[in-house]
Amino acid sequence: MSHKKPPKDADFGRLADCAQVLADAAAAKTIRWFRADFDVDSKSGASKPGVQGQFDPVTIADREAETAIRDKLSELFPDHGVFGEEFGSLNPDARFQWIIDPIDGTAAFIMGWPMWGTLIGLTDQGQPVLGVMDQPYTGERFWSTQSGAMWRGAQGQTRELKTRSCAGLGDAVLSTTHPDYFSAEDRQSFDKIKGQAKTTRYGGDCYAYAMLAGGFSDLIVESGLNSYDVAALIPIVEKAGGVMTTWSGDSAVNGGNIVAAGDARVHEAAVKLLTG
Amino acid sequence: MSHKKPPKDADFGRLADCAQVLADAAAAKTIRWFRADFDVDSKSGASKPGVQGQFDPVTIADREAETAIRDKLSELFPDHGVFGEEFGSLNPDARFQWIIDPIDGTAAFIMGWPMWGTLIGLTDQGQPVLGVMDQPYTGERFWSTQSGAMWRGAQGQTRELKTRSCAGLGDAVLSTTHPDYFSAEDRQSFDKIKGQAKTTRYGGDCYAYAMLAGGFSDLIVESGLNSYDVAALIPIVEKAGGVMTTWSGDSAVNGGNIVAAGDARVHEAAVKLLTG
Repeated sequence: MSHKKPPKDADFGRLADCAQVLADAAAAKTIRWFRADFDVDSKSGASKPGVQGQFDPVTIADREAETAIRDKLSELFPDHGVFGEEFGSLNPDARFQWIIDPIDGTAAFIMGWPMWGTLIGLTDQGQPVLGVMDQPYTGERFWSTQSGAMWRGAQGQTRELKTRSCAGLGDAVLSTTHPDYFSAEDRQSFDKIKGQAKTTRYGGDCYAYAMLAGGFSDLIVESGLNSYDVAALIPIVEKAGGVMTTWSGDSAVNGGNIVAAGDARVHEAAVKLLTG
Repeated sequence: MSHKKPPKDADFGRLADCAQVLADAAAAKTIRWFRADFDVDSKSGASKPGVQGQFDPVTIADREAETAIRDKLSELFPDHGVFGEEFGSLNPDARFQWIIDPIDGTAAFIMGWPMWGTLIGLTDQGQPVLGVMDQPYTGERFWSTQSGAMWRGAQGQTRELKTRSCAGLGDAVLSTTHPDYFSAEDRQSFDKIKGQAKTTRYGGDCYAYAMLAGGFSDLIVESGLNSYDVAALIPIVEKAGGVMTTWSGDSAVNGGNIVAAGDARVHEAAVKLLTG
């Protein structure tokens, strides 16, 4: 693969537009199945299936949304690569790779909590160049641009996302999706951070990264993430002013153990503890 | 205080209408301050204040919302009692007591997560008779009626809330707001439940109870709650088909250690473990 120039402005615009179209395509599918029991129950009077029944809304939603994204990509950029949670890899040697998670936060989705999202990231020769996080139930979308990061609310209002300043770990509002997701060793590292942070909250999945980008929390520490959990979020966090790497400070694009901070000082302090 | 008959249908209607008006009054205040940094930042260009600065949106929102509720109550039912998180008790000997928490889930509020709510409960001679949980950012409201429990979505659509069936702890999706909120002894009790539950999720505050009422999870176990954390939620959970008591199976109306389940079999199994 030859080394090519970064996409020009006009190209970036086309790619960014495509990401928005993909998010729309996914939203039409996911929103239909979110809290689908309400509809099943009210329309047919059938008994509720529960999570473990034959009827599994999140699996259906995941697959339908990823299929919708892939169908749209095959129209718009048939030569691009795609790597998704549900259906693996297509065109793995292409310069541009769309890295997608149709539903990040399936546990939240299953429980009816609006803290999940559709993640659409794009890498150019392995480097994250843009990302979208879409939450169709609240009507919110978060995305990176060439110059920054944006949020759009349910009424169509838009705002720039900006991380807030935070001098150090002692002032930091920390979150992680679930403390049980850590291995025993990683949990010890996390607990070192937790012991110094101002306060810790569990839950959040991709939504936590969007709110960190928006300046409402300071630090996220997670482990065992996949590329499709992070590729879309890296440009959003970084363009909003934050830092997002592995625990050892390397590129986060392949996932693994991840630390994201709104302020570089907090990131540096966290990396020091996590690698210490 | 003399023992009076339960409110007649017509009276219940007036009380239920009042609860909706109170939720509207609170929403106008809370929504103004939720993620207020966005507005402060975009309107004035001022630097972001952060949670610890002089500017504390959640405290302002809490107080303004409770004041709005109290003002409206003093118009509609001046003789009724009020007990709120922020401003204590008024008319404590009155038959009807409005028990309110303007923002349940302040940690979520501060972090920009839409998992908080305004709680408005009413007791008649100490018994919960109706409750409203309002989430103005998502546009959702959950409330009890005389015959059931209802949900209204952002587009004004309504659905009945019904808990789902769950045969036992091994099938149960469990949640609690934060594992650190338990005392060491209570944590051991919680961990017994967690060890048997199918899966456990942290976070949720009042939103978790609304989703349990809607049939999307099965069990909530919490400790150290106040009356204003639970009074509004008891009628919603119970009218949706669930059971909500203290860990020892007594009335939950005064708060304390609380267990709520969508299916009575799960509740019974949980109480057995929690008191064992």
